[in-house]
Amino acid sequence: MTTTSSAPGKVYLFGEHAVVYGEPAVPCAIERRARVTVSERDDDRLRVSADALSIDGFTVEYGNASDDGPDVDVPTPLVEAATGYVDEAVAQARDAAGRPDAGFDVEIESEIPLGAGLGSSAAVAVAGIDAATRELGVKLDTREVADRAYRVEHEVQDGQASRADTFCSAMGGAVRVEGDDCTTLEAPDLPFVVGYDGTSHDTGELVSGVRALRDEFEFAADTVETVGDLVREGERALADGDVETLGRLMNFNHGLLSALGVSARTLDNMVWAARDGGAVGAKLTGAGGGGSIVALDDDGGSVTALSLTPDCEEAFRAELATEGVRVE
Amino acid sequence: MTTTSSAPGKVYLFGEHAVVYGEPAVPCAIERRARVTVSERDDDRLRVSADALSIDGFTVEYGNASDDGPDVDVPTPLVEAATGYVDEAVAQARDAAGRPDAGFDVEIESEIPLGAGLGSSAAVAVAGIDAATRELGVKLDTREVADRAYRVEHEVQDGQASRADTFCSAMGGAVRVEGDDCTTLEAPDLPFVVGYDGTSHDTGELVSGVRALRDEFEFAADTVETVGDLVREGERALADGDVETLGRLMNFNHGLLSALGVSARTLDNMVWAARDGGAVGAKLTGAGGGGSIVALDDDGGSVTALSLTPDCEEAFRAELATEGVRVE
Repeated sequence: MTTTSSAPGKVYLFGEHAVVYGEPAVPCAIERRARVTVSERDDDRLRVSADALSIDGFTVEYGNASDDGPDVDVPTPLVEAATGYVDEAVAQARDAAGRPDAGFDVEIESEIPLGAGLGSSAAVAVAGIDAATRELGVKLDTREVADRAYRVEHEVQDGQASRADTFCSAMGGAVRVEGDDCTTLEAPDLPFVVGYDGTSHDTGELVSGVRALRDEFEFAADTVETVGDLVREGERALADGDVETLGRLMNFNHGLLSALGVSARTLDNMVWAARDGGAVGAKLTGAGGGGSIVALDDDGGSVTALSLTPDCEEAFRAELATEGVRVE
Repeated sequence: MTTTSSAPGKVYLFGEHAVVYGEPAVPCAIERRARVTVSERDDDRLRVSADALSIDGFTVEYGNASDDGPDVDVPTPLVEAATGYVDEAVAQARDAAGRPDAGFDVEIESEIPLGAGLGSSAAVAVAGIDAATRELGVKLDTREVADRAYRVEHEVQDGQASRADTFCSAMGGAVRVEGDDCTTLEAPDLPFVVGYDGTSHDTGELVSGVRALRDEFEFAADTVETVGDLVREGERALADGDVETLGRLMNFNHGLLSALGVSARTLDNMVWAARDGGAVGAKLTGAGGGGSIVALDDDGGSVTALSLTPDCEEAFRAELATEGVRVE
């Protein structure tokens, strides 16, 4: 048998980084998906092939034991990044189905660049758990998929994960995450534009940088709290469908993230390109240090402006994905 | 007789905009000066000639009465900007010397671009008052020159002035301004680098923009307070001569100013160029919206990096001017 599930990537409308310290954040699922196709094998082994991630595709085959790692000729960190999430997603599926020895052929296709701050790893974890459990005849509740996918990220990212990415990818739409408290939000149709600089960055390092600033300077801790207050204001604007205010709040949020040291020259360039192109607001999205920006723009002039920006490798419109994880 | 006085321009190490709301700020005088040469006339008229401001020089001659304005063929706002400060400086000198009918030929030479956020108007006011009073045989205390120059800015800028620029230009060195409380600070030799984008901007409009944000959003008012906390931290780093921490605090301050909506694409470009060129920190200086950035860089690599940045019209090293207003 073969099962394919897909799950969307996400942008942060507001609140990345501050969410690590208990402030609320509002990620939104975007209509760019990771698709994970799973076939149960006769043995207990895993065979993972990945396509269209940020590397040129790879195939690895390895056993169930943790010391029997992949032996392939592509950069190890990238393989580890991709296979780590699949490994742990399969472990969650085995656990959920009570089938510790189940083996799989796993194929990953993704429209979401890896390490771009667009939630590719969360989407792979969510879709992987959903597909692998269905393949074993178990249908999990979406919230349980989200919860297990969080445990995957928590495991792979050395405890640095927030529930935001995985909950958003599983549920779709706009969501609110504050600590362990995750809820879905009503949202208007948001005209997202994404710009991506083609680079990937170490989330853990960026999170540690903010933590160090926060530990050293009380005003940096205050800045993190200010992000939380801004997010609460943003929730009201979202409920009112007030896109213009959402844009202004995104601009403010970007400045606070810059203060916290997680912006980059490429990100600032893309943010200004989007604003100059007509966006009502723009900010970096995700961990920062490079990666992606998100803007709100009805007319799409910001896509053109971003396309003409040397620092921008890819620019695209991305509708709010109202549907989260789904079987294909 | 002829008297020439000069006064330095300034950069904000920390705290512009927040200073308007009673937070402390630390401007520093830089070794770029405005020179005002004054000769008493036989009549009560003013003749003002300006050279090397951001326009190509102009000469105007007009009477003492306020309705008898200049009649010249250069853009009116620029003439008003330059002559407004001279007018009011002369009024202060007349008042200080008890010579309400004194007339002058005034010549302004400035190494500080006008409207660039580098304190050219304050320097002109300070040097103008000093030169005109000396020309009338009166020697004012430097603090009185500063106070009268503040009244000049207050008058010309419709009550939007802070004491920071004029006090700094009069006293020289690094100073601390918190409301009406102005003090001089001990400071190490700070390796300032300045980048200027060639544009000038409306300080009043930028101040109003911050005020509107602050009135609308409590988190924006908190951000202004955070700038104040950062400045207090900066004073400690300055006292310790800790240039590396000063740089990091400048970077943080720039992010907070960006959040408050007063940065610009050109300013962000120059800030990143300076950082990439080796500066330990960089931020916009002054009202923003365009204008100038200031960086700290021992090696001067940031001057080269700025010179190669299309958005930067002029880049230069600027030592801390330990001497304020002086007769030449």
